[in-house]
Amino acid sequence: MIRPALLTLSLALGTAQPAQAAAEPAPATVSVAQPAPLFEEEIARSAAFLDQMMAQGVVVPVPTDPGGGYTHEQHKRNYRAIYLGGQLFKLTGEQKYADYVRDMLLSYAKLYPTLGDHPAKANQNSGRLFWQVLNDAVWLVNSVQGYEAIRGTLVAAQRKQIDDQVFRRAARFLSVDSANTFRRIHNHATWAAAGVGMTGYVLGDKNLVNIALNGLEKDGKTGFLRQTELLFSPDGYYTEGPYYQRYALMPFMVFADSIERNDPSRKIFEHRDGILLKALLTTVQLTYNGHFLPFNDALKDKSLRTEELYQGVAIAYAKTRDPSLLSVAEWQGRTVPTDAGLLLARDLAAGKAIPFDFTSKLLGDGPNGNLGAVALLRTGSGFTGQTLVTKNSSQGMGHGHFDKLSWQYYDNGREIVTDYGAARFLNIEAKQGGRYLPENESWAKQTVAHNTLVVDEMSDFGGDAKLADTLAPQQLYYSATPGEQVSSAIMRGAFEGVTFTRTMALLDVDGLSQPLVVDVMRVNSDTPHTYDLPLHYMGQIMRVGFDLTSNVTTRPVLGSANGYQHIWVDAKGAPTDSATAHLTWLLGDRFYTARWVPQAGSETILAESGANDPEFNLRREPMVIQRVNSSGSTVFASVLEAHGRYDGAAEQTTASDSQIKTIRIEQIDGSDVLVVETISGSRTAFAISYDADPATRHSAKIDGTALNWTGFAKKIDIPGRGSSHE
Amino acid sequence: MIRPALLTLSLALGTAQPAQAAAEPAPATVSVAQPAPLFEEEIARSAAFLDQMMAQGVVVPVPTDPGGGYTHEQHKRNYRAIYLGGQLFKLTGEQKYADYVRDMLLSYAKLYPTLGDHPAKANQNSGRLFWQVLNDAVWLVNSVQGYEAIRGTLVAAQRKQIDDQVFRRAARFLSVDSANTFRRIHNHATWAAAGVGMTGYVLGDKNLVNIALNGLEKDGKTGFLRQTELLFSPDGYYTEGPYYQRYALMPFMVFADSIERNDPSRKIFEHRDGILLKALLTTVQLTYNGHFLPFNDALKDKSLRTEELYQGVAIAYAKTRDPSLLSVAEWQGRTVPTDAGLLLARDLAAGKAIPFDFTSKLLGDGPNGNLGAVALLRTGSGFTGQTLVTKNSSQGMGHGHFDKLSWQYYDNGREIVTDYGAARFLNIEAKQGGRYLPENESWAKQTVAHNTLVVDEMSDFGGDAKLADTLAPQQLYYSATPGEQVSSAIMRGAFEGVTFTRTMALLDVDGLSQPLVVDVMRVNSDTPHTYDLPLHYMGQIMRVGFDLTSNVTTRPVLGSANGYQHIWVDAKGAPTDSATAHLTWLLGDRFYTARWVPQAGSETILAESGANDPEFNLRREPMVIQRVNSSGSTVFASVLEAHGRYDGAAEQTTASDSQIKTIRIEQIDGSDVLVVETISGSRTAFAISYDADPATRHSAKIDGTALNWTGFAKKIDIPGRGSSHE
Repeated sequence: MIRPALLTLSLALGTAQPAQAAAEPAPATVSVAQPAPLFEEEIARSAAFLDQMMAQGVVVPVPTDPGGGYTHEQHKRNYRAIYLGGQLFKLTGEQKYADYVRDMLLSYAKLYPTLGDHPAKANQNSGRLFWQVLNDAVWLVNSVQGYEAIRGTLVAAQRKQIDDQVFRRAARFLSVDSANTFRRIHNHATWAAAGVGMTGYVLGDKNLVNIALNGLEKDGKTGFLRQTELLFSPDGYYTEGPYYQRYALMPFMVFADSIERNDPSRKIFEHRDGILLKALLTTVQLTYNGHFLPFNDALKDKSLRTEELYQGVAIAYAKTRDPSLLSVAEWQGRTVPTDAGLLLARDLAAGKAIPFDFTSKLLGDGPNGNLGAVALLRTGSGFTGQTLVTKNSSQGMGHGHFDKLSWQYYDNGREIVTDYGAARFLNIEAKQGGRYLPENESWAKQTVAHNTLVVDEMSDFGGDAKLADTLAPQQLYYSATPGEQVSSAIMRGAFEGVTFTRTMALLDVDGLSQPLVVDVMRVNSDTPHTYDLPLHYMGQIMRVGFDLTSNVTTRPVLGSANGYQHIWVDAKGAPTDSATAHLTWLLGDRFYTARWVPQAGSETILAESGANDPEFNLRREPMVIQRVNSSGSTVFASVLEAHGRYDGAAEQTTASDSQIKTIRIEQIDGSDVLVVETISGSRTAFAISYDADPATRHSAKIDGTALNWTGFAKKIDIPGRGSSHE
Repeated sequence: MIRPALLTLSLALGTAQPAQAAAEPAPATVSVAQPAPLFEEEIARSAAFLDQMMAQGVVVPVPTDPGGGYTHEQHKRNYRAIYLGGQLFKLTGEQKYADYVRDMLLSYAKLYPTLGDHPAKANQNSGRLFWQVLNDAVWLVNSVQGYEAIRGTLVAAQRKQIDDQVFRRAARFLSVDSANTFRRIHNHATWAAAGVGMTGYVLGDKNLVNIALNGLEKDGKTGFLRQTELLFSPDGYYTEGPYYQRYALMPFMVFADSIERNDPSRKIFEHRDGILLKALLTTVQLTYNGHFLPFNDALKDKSLRTEELYQGVAIAYAKTRDPSLLSVAEWQGRTVPTDAGLLLARDLAAGKAIPFDFTSKLLGDGPNGNLGAVALLRTGSGFTGQTLVTKNSSQGMGHGHFDKLSWQYYDNGREIVTDYGAARFLNIEAKQGGRYLPENESWAKQTVAHNTLVVDEMSDFGGDAKLADTLAPQQLYYSATPGEQVSSAIMRGAFEGVTFTRTMALLDVDGLSQPLVVDVMRVNSDTPHTYDLPLHYMGQIMRVGFDLTSNVTTRPVLGSANGYQHIWVDAKGAPTDSATAHLTWLLGDRFYTARWVPQAGSETILAESGANDPEFNLRREPMVIQRVNSSGSTVFASVLEAHGRYDGAAEQTTASDSQIKTIRIEQIDGSDVLVVETISGSRTAFAISYDADPATRHSAKIDGTALNWTGFAKKIDIPGRGSSHE
């Protein structure tokens, strides 16, 4: 339907409206015949939505309902219609879209002046159209973009009415009248700043632009520019984690795009060493198989296929022409109905895409990048290579989890060593109205729900979020050297009197078909403690290497608080050496074996989440816990090995059992040396000096062989013994 | 590498070797330029495999190992190399392939005469090359096809040596020397017949062909032709179920293809009303989203992407040119390196595919089609529509499950109401060497592991497989009328003194967005019993409509035998009306609500599989069980409703709660009338007279309104009450 008109008009667009790309080389290769199927689908989808909306007429109800209710959803549909209607008018020139947007906004012009606090407000941050001021800001960001596209078609009286009664009022409400929110250094304030600033550009109101950029006091201590400096680390990491980074990014990118178009001399995309584009690329890096790494309160079904990233990728592509962003758009299968979306879709269709370089990265946390870090260790490439994530970042505010020095592992397109994410079923009425569930506090945030140290069955910082925000881990070392990637960090203060240092590596090991994950956690304390080290994984157990006492007819719970009340105990065992201390599981077509060095007197617990959950709010997922009652200090030494293949179609299975014979850990002169011996007899050491000086020489004797290395950590092949017997 | 040569030679193939399609119209549109990417990939894959094999030279070890062991796997690789080497020689004319196949077979000619019973034989059915005679038959079926392709290139002495020392000996071993197997009416005998018969054609030995077709006694009481008559029902259903049907089909199709080429006047594909092609189409029908319905001992990862079906689909396409088979091949993404595969790949690339018509079907079981049936009730189309499966078939021999009148339900591309399938991890050494696990007997086969009636915590026939084979359900009624599809069956004798009749329907109901599954099970007995009706489902519980007593800190087991020992009890409740007797879960982006009419004094058990499983051999899957202590007869009335949408990307959720207000069941003059009332107030009755006469009139009064219908079952909209209040 829309396609013929579109093809004609997209030519006009390619020539008449190049404002956006003013500072860029002209898109010389653009021609009317150039296909852009992704864009055309977007336009068709938008037109279908507008048809549906227009069929219902202009419906602008008096706000009454909270999130999810009728008036809430209707005002959301309306801002979407205003935004898309404006874009469609711009692209097709069809007057019906301009008329619909105009009528909608005239209706808002009547409603808006009558509004006070929303009747369903839950706290001080009431909106006007919505129960929360944040939603009002989102409404403004979308609507002002639609208005911009049709404002020039209006007769003066109508334009004035909409300017004054809708947008000036909304901008005033979000800034002066909601000063507490507007002054924050927080993504809610970014949404408000974006709405206010973009309104300023559209109405030609420099004061609005100024307060949006520099804060109500115009001193630059708050406002959009300050937010770009404080909300992202120098590496473009957002402290709440990728799930919220995705959300926070949207107003940054959209407002920056507007600033660039209206005020190119400001060079907003170069501000702070190009932080906004860096943040966009970092957001993409923080995905696996397209899904955001589930740090903190994250919903695990959230992927790059989300509106925020359609906008972000298109804007970033228009600005940078980075062809690897085209492959992201290809994975998304969507774009946006804007000039940037058209450009992207055309270049994608022209075959310009190259693979996005998902790569190893160290991402510092905090405004100065020194509040811990997230280290990504990757092998392979593309969306489904191996990704070891060590989360050594800071707490990340209220949505943060008590998971200091936790890790996650992804392989073969799947989650292998997992993070629970948030306990929430978004917008599902039966699940506490779709809000965070009680189990988000009692399970998902607790330390034991993560792959990291638990001391005395307590969570980090005693579960005190305020305290947690004051102390970050320290990244000690990072190396992305192919074949021996390493990340090491230390955490002090999460548990009183206990310090723990965790060194993780992704090593190519002779005799193994896949890179090996190595995990050495050194725990130091002067007093006795019970230490638990859980490993949460996905898959079906194939083999347990040691004897178990199983709870097969009644299943007890592991503990009573701090998440332990949610753990069913399947079985316990007490392996005494690493030849037997292992667990093999199958996920997809690959096998995984976790193996560890059992400390004297330690025990192993095989368990599952889901106890004390009468509402069935939790997913039931397996875990294995190493537990040791220690007189103070101890070392947990573990490896995770991917091996073999299960091919159900061909009915062939290879290497379903671990290819490792033993591992051991030796502490020599302050260094930790982990030795892996494969069943084929090869021996590989991973030596950690904990000495950041790259030049200092270290040595340790293993089985009579002297190992020498320099620097913090090193993989060393140990020569054969001359005989494979022992 | 292989591609240039291939393109030249595929022309030769299109003209010089049309023997296969002799009875078909010439492939007039075939030309050298016609692309066939699926076929080219197959050739490349085969060539890569042959390269690898040839690099290792001819390796024909003396048989020593059982299944999975080295010599076992090597002889499997060898027959694959002989088969593919022959095909590659035929296609490319490259002598190296013929030489390799020749050398391999000469090596077998030395080995074969030296062989007696396999040293690892497990029972009387020892093979020569393999531990089981079945594997020897598969070896012969494959190898003789490779030999056929190169036999003409051999010098006489070598040909004689291979003829006599390999193929004549193998054919004799599989027929005369293994007469017990050869005489069976069983798929093992089909493999043997195929190998012997195809050898007869290749060697020009009419006697071998004759005994293959008509049995050792040549009287037609056994042999291939008799097998086609007895192993499939007239509807092409194989009594062991689709997982084994897939496997059994291979020798049928391959041998039939050979018969057709060598003896077209026999019209093998028309034999018994075209049973072989019918069986192929039925096999495809018995899939959902490409995966075989997991009847009986089935591995659930088995899909159309399997060698047997690549062969079957290609042969059937070459014979019928049914364009819907091309879409099956497209889903498979594979074909075979034969003339049939080339034809299929060309026509697929030429865009001739039309969607395969997955449709509602009644498939009778047994040689005469009267030993029960499988009824498929479908809506939507393609691979992912709604599919309600009522399994009213017979036991299906030793791999059969005690699941009389069970059902399964598929929707939105997923399993919703599930069947456990087999408890087995094929070829995984750690899991009992990859054999069926003990839990296959103790759980997977038991009645309570299925969605059907359990009496007094016992399985059908007391778990006696021999007895089970003597009594089949009786299909009472089937209708594929759009909007009101119905299947009804009765089972007598599965439980002493208890008869049960189950009527299931897939109904379009006013006020519901998706077709509704209706389930009315009438149980008749003169003596008191405890009846359990389990529903095994996939998904996360969103809402339970009634109060529960939950086992949140210790989890007990439901029973002690017949599968009950494997059931953990999460919670129990005792809803008293259908307004509260419901359970809503989420799977993928859709919600499902099971709702039922609680009988007086009944209780409901929410549970999970996985108790008494110290080896972690079971998957842990949820179930809900309706339990009633009855004085004798009772009726279970239930519905399953798909509703709403969860869109994580757009963060929008619609209709997450059931759209049904109540259901009720009334027994009136021998009829059962189920009434569904939606929350929008519409009422729909489903009336079952149990009277197969389509003309007889029936009536029942519901809320003062007379419902009239003819025939076995009917959906009836009940007019409004004039007021929606009550």
